Amino acid sequence: MTTGAPLYMQVEQALAARISDELRPGDRLPTEGELIAEFGVSRITVRRAVQELAARGLVVTRRGQGTFVTAPRLRQPLTALTGFVEDMEAQGLQSRARVLRVEEVSAPPEARAALDLPLGSSVTLIQRVRLAAGQPVSFDVTYLPVHLGSLVAQDDLENEQIFTLLETRHRTPLIEADYALTASTADAAVAAALEVPEGSAVFRIERTSFTTGQLPVDYEVLHYRGDAITFTTRLPRSGAASERKP
Amino acid sequence: MTTGAPLYMQVEQALAARISDELRPGDRLPTEGELIAEFGVSRITVRRAVQELAARGLVVTRRGQGTFVTAPRLRQPLTALTGFVEDMEAQGLQSRARVLRVEEVSAPPEARAALDLPLGSSVTLIQRVRLAAGQPVSFDVTYLPVHLGSLVAQDDLENEQIFTLLETRHRTPLIEADYALTASTADAAVAAALEVPEGSAVFRIERTSFTTGQLPVDYEVLHYRGDAITFTTRLPRSGAASERKP
Repeated sequence: MTTGAPLYMQVEQALAARISDELRPGDRLPTEGELIAEFGVSRITVRRAVQELAARGLVVTRRGQGTFVTAPRLRQPLTALTGFVEDMEAQGLQSRARVLRVEEVSAPPEARAALDLPLGSSVTLIQRVRLAAGQPVSFDVTYLPVHLGSLVAQDDLENEQIFTLLETRHRTPLIEADYALTASTADAAVAAALEVPEGSAVFRIERTSFTTGQLPVDYEVLHYRGDAITFTTRLPRSGAASERKP
Repeated sequence: MTTGAPLYMQVEQALAARISDELRPGDRLPTEGELIAEFGVSRITVRRAVQELAARGLVVTRRGQGTFVTAPRLRQPLTALTGFVEDMEAQGLQSRARVLRVEEVSAPPEARAALDLPLGSSVTLIQRVRLAAGQPVSFDVTYLPVHLGSLVAQDDLENEQIFTLLETRHRTPLIEADYALTASTADAAVAAALEVPEGSAVFRIERTSFTTGQLPVDYEVLHYRGDAITFTTRLPRSGAASERKP
């Protein structure tokens, strides 16, 4: 072990290396007793080391069960309009969709506002669960204007991406999108779709995608499992003054 | 009322206009009975209208107490590195900070990694609650390298901004920052600082700010009240291909 650093850090680093090199998500860490014996340190040192690993998100301790290696979070750059399949492919992950619902419905106020539709309009509603490596990661609710949605509704939504369908099959290029990001907690419906307990953290994205002529063509509400994903971006300081002006 | 639209939408729109023009956050909406009498519609219509208002985030219904106008969410563009005071000023809001803790501590692993400090380093830890219009909005934990932190610790952190102090008083220009965005829920400490129940939604931002020469000088973990803020951005589709390459 490294000398000089506090003992708990040395234990922490040894365990972090083992997690990265040998262990898999869901594997159990040795017990406190085993770690005390292995490293020849006190219980307080082992506890501190495990606490630090938990703070780094590498392990989670379940009372009465032990300490387990967590699944690594997906890290998703928030720098361009991309679809779920594109995002997961960029991380080398297999993804697929489970289609829960495809239906023409009266447009709810948010969808009507986002898609700039007149009062009383209908929209095509598509509800899907997106899975990465077999695990539910996102519950997506998509609203499309009926002239596009009625076409997309005929497509193979388990295996094809709505962005790709719009762009290639339905001649609707996507130019850019407005994002609104919030943190919320899972209600019963979202919890069931994501297979998490009600009240779990949810990263919620409302996204309106525009085709040529600033025409909104796709309004989505994406509910990501809070414990499964981190969005990243890099922002310049220099833009501050100009960006803040209306 | 508008004719043609379903009755519940007409009631919804009338109430939305009243919320925007006459009512203030915390005000109670009339009871179901009062709304039935006022609009001459059925209970089911009134309920649907109120449900739609709740879905839009304009009201919240508390069982046994009634339906109340919510505080409008802050909408914060995520387009440039800005500090809390700058953000709130851009929205016309008074802001201030409540300083909970300023202390030199052994650098936790995340802070050490972000600030690129050697093992065993100390950092200056600053914990503050940021208030907008008198309400807690964010609980900020800031880690600074001690050579800067020991200077900033002497400053008036209730009334001055760390970014401004670094840039103007301590000759450390900020160039850009890396952001990692996650959704989580409030643990006991965060809940106490934000004055929300434990388990409430929290929008968590880890931000590392860099000075000239790509040198990290400020690592922060910001915990925003999930119900108080929406971050917004606009992303181009065209960037997708290039951004996704490593």
